[in-house]
Amino acid sequence: MMRQLLALAAAPLLLAQAPPPAAAPEPPVYNAADKIIADAPASHWLAINPDDIMVMDTAAGQMLIQLAPAFAPAHVAAIKALVRTGQFDDGRIVRVQDNYVVQWTARPDPTRPKAAPLPEEYERPLTGLSFTPSPYKDTYAEAGFVSGWPAARDPATGTAWLAHCYATVGVGRDNPPDTGDGTELYTVIGHGPRHLDRNIANVGRVLAGIEPHAALPRGTEALGFYKTDTQMTKIRRVRLASQIAGFPRWQMMDTASPSFAAINTARANRIGFFTRPAGAADLCTLRVPVRLAP
Amino acid sequence: MMRQLLALAAAPLLLAQAPPPAAAPEPPVYNAADKIIADAPASHWLAINPDDIMVMDTAAGQMLIQLAPAFAPAHVAAIKALVRTGQFDDGRIVRVQDNYVVQWTARPDPTRPKAAPLPEEYERPLTGLSFTPSPYKDTYAEAGFVSGWPAARDPATGTAWLAHCYATVGVGRDNPPDTGDGTELYTVIGHGPRHLDRNIANVGRVLAGIEPHAALPRGTEALGFYKTDTQMTKIRRVRLASQIAGFPRWQMMDTASPSFAAINTARANRIGFFTRPAGAADLCTLRVPVRLAP
Repeated sequence: MMRQLLALAAAPLLLAQAPPPAAAPEPPVYNAADKIIADAPASHWLAINPDDIMVMDTAAGQMLIQLAPAFAPAHVAAIKALVRTGQFDDGRIVRVQDNYVVQWTARPDPTRPKAAPLPEEYERPLTGLSFTPSPYKDTYAEAGFVSGWPAARDPATGTAWLAHCYATVGVGRDNPPDTGDGTELYTVIGHGPRHLDRNIANVGRVLAGIEPHAALPRGTEALGFYKTDTQMTKIRRVRLASQIAGFPRWQMMDTASPSFAAINTARANRIGFFTRPAGAADLCTLRVPVRLAP
Repeated sequence: MMRQLLALAAAPLLLAQAPPPAAAPEPPVYNAADKIIADAPASHWLAINPDDIMVMDTAAGQMLIQLAPAFAPAHVAAIKALVRTGQFDDGRIVRVQDNYVVQWTARPDPTRPKAAPLPEEYERPLTGLSFTPSPYKDTYAEAGFVSGWPAARDPATGTAWLAHCYATVGVGRDNPPDTGDGTELYTVIGHGPRHLDRNIANVGRVLAGIEPHAALPRGTEALGFYKTDTQMTKIRRVRLASQIAGFPRWQMMDTASPSFAAINTARANRIGFFTRPAGAADLCTLRVPVRLAP
């Protein structure tokens, strides 16, 4: 009697899932993307630099965040400096707004030196980037991928930027010209708020462990802020993976690879459960596979 | 030190929020849509039929679901019959998959008569619908609104359908020609899985109370199913609002009204925090305001 709602199994996965057990009651014909991921040769995967992975241990679980220095070098450098000096240890998740963001801060510390103003890294020159366009229409811009990241570009300005999708990580800021100092970060836990693109410094994405944080109680105050410290989830410790001996290596799929193109085609033309494949797919549903290095 | 990340305040809200208190530290210049909602005349709101509202009381809270008989009349009739005969009482939330769905079922009951097969109400004729197109590009189809609902249409087939956005409610099914019998429902809690459009019967949306359900622990099994009954959230009782004396009246904004058009324009051209307004907005971010009748 329990309908499996197979269509929903076809949701793009951030993590390449293990293949279903042989005894699975339903053949996974609906999920061609999983097979392409499993069959992709090693050359279609890119190593993720352990110095670009934040390992955040909270009272809810461990969340790994991959930073994107190619898009926001000054912000990423500032965040890494905060991590290396332990500024996020004993930090707090201060806000969870439904269909929007989980937001957290470094440990409040009035003695922390005021950070130097950071440049507006809301977008960057296209020059020097390998941009693989999405074949599908996009509401906001020309959508595509840059070396493992969902992105968009504007030929008129000659710029590109990381797109706000589920699990994208950005830097909180006040009104301009403030660009944030990296002590306040958020990740998206709802429909991709692409209107934030080009208005805020995106610095990365959650690689793994978003689930228990996306499941935190929503804050009761305006914008989903918590009211009391007791309501906030504690951040125990944040380190870079490069600081942790033996930390597992991660990889992301090369978005310029034939495997990724094939996955996108499969996601736009789902079979099995689907009687009418969409023939297209939104940038934020074309999630880039990541995995532990085999 | 707590950056408010004002941009994030501009998230489209399902519920029209109360205006900020006069003493708010930041003027809400970023949220023109809220003011338009507050100022909209009564003629820009549509009453929601209390017979179309499911009142679902669970161990996590109360969730109100507005049904859409214009799009899936047979499925909605079947669901209402299940509600009226108490079939969802002591049901279970059986699945929570991150960035995807919360799914629940009627009380397991082997003696329940097998439902008659339902028609494939995945889409319906455009004829008889008042379709207000979105002015913005859509990845999947021609996006727009029909009498308070986010929808899309295909002139080639002469059909329209409810779009899969955050909080949309659909009917779980197995592989075709099974269309589901209404005993298994889900709501979207992630990026709108628009590829499901035209492949499943959408029957409504969550009007209120999605937050504590979207914050439920993700299921540990494949596709986010829970393993044991203990892990599942209990559904205490489901009734139609029309069955509950004195139940509050709800309204939705008329999506053909000038107020809704103005909100969409404001959402596509955000000010204040935004240094570079998007100039466009995705269907699933143009959420239709709903409210308690004043």
